[in-house]
Amino acid sequence: MSRLDSFIRRLLAQRACLDRAAVLVGGVPGPVVELGLGNGRTYDHLRQILPERRIYVFERAPAAHPLCTPAAGYLVVGDFAETLPGAVTRLGGPAALIHADVGSGDETANARLAAWLGPLIVPMLAEGGIITSDQRLTAEGLAPQPVPAEADKGRYYLYRRTAMARRAAAS
Amino acid sequence: MSRLDSFIRRLLAQRACLDRAAVLVGGVPGPVVELGLGNGRTYDHLRQILPERRIYVFERAPAAHPLCTPAAGYLVVGDFAETLPGAVTRLGGPAALIHADVGSGDETANARLAAWLGPLIVPMLAEGGIITSDQRLTAEGLAPQPVPAEADKGRYYLYRRTAMARRAAAS
Ligand SMILES: C[S@@+](CC[C@H](N)C(=O)[O-])C[C@H]1O[C@@H](n2cnc3c(N)ncnc32)[C@H](O)[C@@H]1O
Ligand code: NI
Ligand code: NI
Repeated sequence: MSRLDSFIRRLLAQRACLDRAAVLVGGVPGPVVELGLGNGRTYDHLRQILPERRIYVFERAPAAHPLCTPAAGYLVVGDFAETLPGAVTRLGGPAALIHADVGSGDETANARLAAWLGPLIVPMLAEGGIITSDQRLTAEGLAPQPVPAEADKGRYYLYRRTAMARRAAAS
Repeated sequence: MSRLDSFIRRLLAQRACLDRAAVLVGGVPGPVVELGLGNGRTYDHLRQILPERRIYVFERAPAAHPLCTPAAGYLVVGDFAETLPGAVTRLGGPAALIHADVGSGDETANARLAAWLGPLIVPMLAEGGIITSDQRLTAEGLAPQPVPAEADKGRYYLYRRTAMARRAAAS
């Protein structure tokens, strides 16, 4: 498989997981959180598949086309480590969906980021809410969900915040 | 259609055209020319679908992963305007296939580039050889070919160098 093939598969998995996530949060109230704006492609996709939701984007170094950049008040600039704690207040309540496409080419850095990001974002999520991510997350309170058939296994991940796991975590 | 959808369609069209081009040049001897290395994804694809061909890459500012960067002697660094005239000598003969993925987000600049690039690369191509490009090219000696069904019209282009048009251009 060429790098072009691999890149296409990754994007197809990403889109399939975003589309599935939008369906899964149908009954869950709350805004959407996009972690990492990048060039704004998935932000644009999210606002098309969830037009009725507020979308908050967290990004250290915004550099997307102006048309794919959120309006002031919906873009939170800074490192996740500083902007995510306490973010629920800004969101006006827990999120229905968090999309965390945060990886870079550095596998070690990705694993480290995923390890501290998981526990930081689970409390931002409504009960029954969904996280979809390019990283495998293993935080307390997250139940892995099967990815859609169009998504190759191991390219993108889906999790639902469980009530049971939340009680266990609080005990 | 979101920017994510659009990006995926563009990559599917690109891959379909590269794969089709590889079949179309089956009977045409000569090396492959990649105009623009970018991050090396299509270079990697070309070397997988045409493993028996020499591949020359022309790039102003090489910045791909080392594993997707051609060996010394196969990477020609510089602006196309300087590196392409006389390039046939370096190739050891006309190319069977030229892939020109050269566009940027600037439509005006793209049209200007395509206008001078076409006439510059047609003479580098063997009779019956193929150009596939992200730009519409209108040089003398190029016959547009239908793109594969998987490729949306207007996202990627295929041309064959015709003997007839070459004679016409020389008259
Ligand atoms: C893979 S890109 C996102 C691409 C985006 N989903 C798209 O489709 O265009 C990852 C983004 O996360 C941002 N990022 C990574 N780590 C971060 C951190 N610790 N704090 C803030 N932003 C971060 C990067 O700057 C980058 O823009
Ligand atoms: Ni954009
Ligand atoms: Ni590469």
